Amino acid sequence: MATPADRLWTNARLATMAGEGLGAVDRGAVAAAGDTIVYAGPAQDAPDAAEIIDCLGRWITPGLIDCHTHLVHAGNRAREFELRLAGASYEEIARAGGGILSTVEATRAATVEELVASALPRLDQLTGEGVTTVEIKSGYGLTLADEIKMLRAAHLLGWAGRGVMTVRTLLAAHAVPPEYRDDPEGYVDLICQAIIPAARREAHAVDAYCEGIGFTLAQVDRIFAAAREHGLGVRMHAEQLSNMHGAALAARHGALSADHLEHLDAEGVAAMAAAGTVAVLLPGAFYFTRETKLPPVQALRDAGVPIAVASDCNPGTSPMASILLAVNMGATLFRLTVDECLLGVTRNAARALGLGHLIGTIEPGKLCNLAIWDVEAPAELAYRIGANPLHARVFRGI
Amino acid sequence: MATPADRLWTNARLATMAGEGLGAVDRGAVAAAGDTIVYAGPAQDAPDAAEIIDCLGRWITPGLIDCHTHLVHAGNRAREFELRLAGASYEEIARAGGGILSTVEATRAATVEELVASALPRLDQLTGEGVTTVEIKSGYGLTLADEIKMLRAAHLLGWAGRGVMTVRTLLAAHAVPPEYRDDPEGYVDLICQAIIPAARREAHAVDAYCEGIGFTLAQVDRIFAAAREHGLGVRMHAEQLSNMHGAALAARHGALSADHLEHLDAEGVAAMAAAGTVAVLLPGAFYFTRETKLPPVQALRDAGVPIAVASDCNPGTSPMASILLAVNMGATLFRLTVDECLLGVTRNAARALGLGHLIGTIEPGKLCNLAIWDVEAPAELAYRIGANPLHARVFRGI
Ligand SMILES: [Zn+2]
Ligand SMILES: [Zn+2]
Repeated sequence: MATPADRLWTNARLATMAGEGLGAVDRGAVAAAGDTIVYAGPAQDAPDAAEIIDCLGRWITPGLIDCHTHLVHAGNRAREFELRLAGASYEEIARAGGGILSTVEATRAATVEELVASALPRLDQLTGEGVTTVEIKSGYGLTLADEIKMLRAAHLLGWAGRGVMTVRTLLAAHAVPPEYRDDPEGYVDLICQAIIPAARREAHAVDAYCEGIGFTLAQVDRIFAAAREHGLGVRMHAEQLSNMHGAALAARHGALSADHLEHLDAEGVAAMAAAGTVAVLLPGAFYFTRETKLPPVQALRDAGVPIAVASDCNPGTSPMASILLAVNMGATLFRLTVDECLLGVTRNAARALGLGHLIGTIEPGKLCNLAIWDVEAPAELAYRIGANPLHARVFRGI
Repeated sequence: MATPADRLWTNARLATMAGEGLGAVDRGAVAAAGDTIVYAGPAQDAPDAAEIIDCLGRWITPGLIDCHTHLVHAGNRAREFELRLAGASYEEIARAGGGILSTVEATRAATVEELVASALPRLDQLTGEGVTTVEIKSGYGLTLADEIKMLRAAHLLGWAGRGVMTVRTLLAAHAVPPEYRDDPEGYVDLICQAIIPAARREAHAVDAYCEGIGFTLAQVDRIFAAAREHGLGVRMHAEQLSNMHGAALAARHGALSADHLEHLDAEGVAAMAAAGTVAVLLPGAFYFTRETKLPPVQALRDAGVPIAVASDCNPGTSPMASILLAVNMGATLFRLTVDECLLGVTRNAARALGLGHLIGTIEPGKLCNLAIWDVEAPAELAYRIGANPLHARVFRGI
């Protein structure tokens, strides 16, 4: 007999995400003591528990993890979208206050409370789909104070009574702010010398947008060196619009993940495989920007690079606060298998956050974060477009 | 002073969908007497009413109309989707019970009550997004009794307490059933001589799938002639996979709509324009089947063909019960403007159903079907992916 437990979810089908495939257990049960899983396996061997929940045959997965979002931001870019569709020129959109700098301006003008309030509906959408962990990046402040303000808002969202853990990433290197337009190196100095040290206790990792319109390889190299000096993990927006060989640099720094990757080449794949860097695919941005270049899924598979999938929720290129749509798009647009999609929002997403020891699978010792689904099979989570078959969610055992 | 009213929604912004563009009224009000709109216009000129609802500045559109769905069906094709992604061959999928005939088999085996029960979650998803009218096709029965059973299920869904009107379309000409594999003309005879006469009081219109894998032009010509003989409107699944010149045939029969239209040519556009046939675009099927051929949106625009947008909710090529995703996909994938998308799920969708006199705009004399939205501008309804900013819905004045 196993350890006695506080709560037991039984008469369930489990997709534990541990072991082979989805780690399915047909007549399964999960038990928690406090916030931690103490048993996951056949129902017949489950421990006693003070409270027993009959799942009536429903499927249980780990609580979903959205490992790449820009959930915190102010402003509204629906008008920009409307103008683009109506054929407005770049200049007309800029004059109407479009583009990333419009989000920066609005975010700088917002208080931390306003940022929390405006992000809550998006967070509620994600948690309503079974998300129990959400990564949130800064990157629309682009000053020391405004980047910290964004990270504080992300922190507060984890304490807003929504039953979700927020994982914060510093993305000061998202764009060069207007006041540094003629001195990008000066902005990189600011990031390395002031923002990273200040964000050390506000963020889990440092991210950078390595792109022609973002930061150069040499600049990101400096930023990542500073991040590692302060004990922070690193991640990269890499090879989204062109092959900058960013993923290989990220791998050299032992990056947790490289994200987007439409233009990743064989060398980049090999470097990521060797470093154990997770490939975070973002089909929402691919869809919204009508990209046609597909990420090299088969090469990633062949090399054994772990694949994650995320919403990339952001106002400019992926205004989508839905992890289930990201899963459907990963399958439909990127031809990921159902197993790859679902591991991509659980086990591999945890790994992209450096939290593989804590979340992402249903195994003893992990936090008891669960999603309970009204589906006949896990494949339905990928197959249906815009459906939400969530029955219930468990966060830290409750 | 206008007619006194039962209910008044005031302090609202209206997108009436009447007149120019979205027919916006900035400080607007809508009043209903019974189930009918008696006033729509500036709040200051609104009539008195027994009940007054303060909309706090929210936007009101007509209740949305999903004018092309296959909402009623049995079975579950998630497994087929999973197998396809895993690289299974056509034969393996057929052996595992995939394809449209698996849906036919399951639908034939289901009772009308089972069909209603299985469709309700999909219907609830649509109504939850502000839909007040949904068209539902038969087409998975393919016998007299089973087609009628599907139409009855669609009828009952309109009386399931969901506050939605269902509009039924006979699509017996969806596929040639297995028992007529070697005698498709015999099946067309059955449709013309038995199914259409029996469906006369069960359906509003007759639809047909004109395609290499469906029915020929000559067969559809016979079916439409029979439909018109029995006083039923006609619609067509046209030019989805190839240019069959179906839209021109549909136009010759005065069709309410021709739907899909990726392969429509200039002659087809001209014929539709002359006949006033609505072009119903179905971006969900385009997305799910990874089609690359776009419908000729600019040609439709130039010719003045009314454009509607619908979910095409069906298990094989568009497992999407979301009108807002259809709107987002219409904008993102087809580059429809925001106005075109929103007129496409209101005024023009009503016209595709032959119900333009009753629903689709906010005007005196129309049914008081409304959707009230928590958005800053109607463009947000198209811009956001997978969001649902519905605040409240009004069906027939309540
Ligand atoms: Zn991003
Ligand atoms: Zn259809």
